Amino acid sequence: MIEKKNSNIHLALVHFPVYNKHYEIVTSSVTTLDVHDISRICKTYDINSFYVVTPLRTQQLLVDRMLKHWLAGFGAEYNPTRREALMQTVVQPNIEKVVEDVQKLRGKKPQTVVTDARTFPNSVDYPTMREKIASDCEFLLIFGTAWGLEKGIIRRADHILMPIDGKNGYNHLPVRSAIAIILDRLLT
Amino acid sequence: MIEKKNSNIHLALVHFPVYNKHYEIVTSSVTTLDVHDISRICKTYDINSFYVVTPLRTQQLLVDRMLKHWLAGFGAEYNPTRREALMQTVVQPNIEKVVEDVQKLRGKKPQTVVTDARTFPNSVDYPTMREKIASDCEFLLIFGTAWGLEKGIIRRADHILMPIDGKNGYNHLPVRSAIAIILDRLLT
Repeated sequence: MIEKKNSNIHLALVHFPVYNKHYEIVTSSVTTLDVHDISRICKTYDINSFYVVTPLRTQQLLVDRMLKHWLAGFGAEYNPTRREALMQTVVQPNIEKVVEDVQKLRGKKPQTVVTDARTFPNSVDYPTMREKIASDCEFLLIFGTAWGLEKGIIRRADHILMPIDGKNGYNHLPVRSAIAIILDRLLT
Repeated sequence: MIEKKNSNIHLALVHFPVYNKHYEIVTSSVTTLDVHDISRICKTYDINSFYVVTPLRTQQLLVDRMLKHWLAGFGAEYNPTRREALMQTVVQPNIEKVVEDVQKLRGKKPQTVVTDARTFPNSVDYPTMREKIASDCEFLLIFGTAWGLEKGIIRRADHILMPIDGKNGYNHLPVRSAIAIILDRLLT
């Protein structure tokens, strides 16, 4: 395996526990387009592994079937750049399993990094986070789908990134756009 | 109308003329998800107008129907942040009409800015382009769908932005991710 420059960075897209618009905790559906888009973004910025996190067995099977199609099936030949992007994509049932997997893969427990629409006393800005990740430590960037990550995950995170500051207070980017912007800010 | 900070910046998503994977000139299909995502990104970065460019009447009607649903129909109440994002979104049949529309709206012809996967002798980097757009001039950022903008559009553009430099030569971001990253680089 080739050692990659940012191979100490891992990313998780979480479908449970997240909020719905009524601030109830739900399991959101996996969107295959998210898996494709975020895999391509992760590949561009040399993320070590991209974890699609869902506890639902049927949704895990859906992602596995999709990955199989593009990695080994007809899709691999039809669209090789898609295959290349999906090679780092893995399904896991929960964040704890992701942390274990990173630890097994890299020999160190990752520090967790989350984003939230709000600013907290311990929120860190992007230049500070850039410096932190340019180290020997492992980092797991955790993103929530739907209306965002359950607050316990935010509270327990090692680092909370500042919200993406738009020009006018509008703060409703799709998660796939937020991930693109954040990786560009942290890793270029 | 409130004068917005970056109101001299306009954005067009072009569905013709673009290339398919065999390097043939085609009209790509409008993807409603692109319209939603890019509208939200444009709203976040205070883009003046977002133009969905397609010569196909049926596709224009599709976008109009979608806009009507979210701006005035059931969707306006169901999801107000989506409504807010789509208020700057307009359909036009071709780039010439977009240029005319900007000129009519703002009293000045916009300078066109394109991106391409290749680097040209006159390619400009992001800090240089940031300085250029912090002026009284109008700018139209033009993005191609499918396998990219027809080369005549690139050749005639006033400015060509450098490609987004990933970490490893992988250069296959979805257009909606590229737009998010480029607006963040130019406008924050």
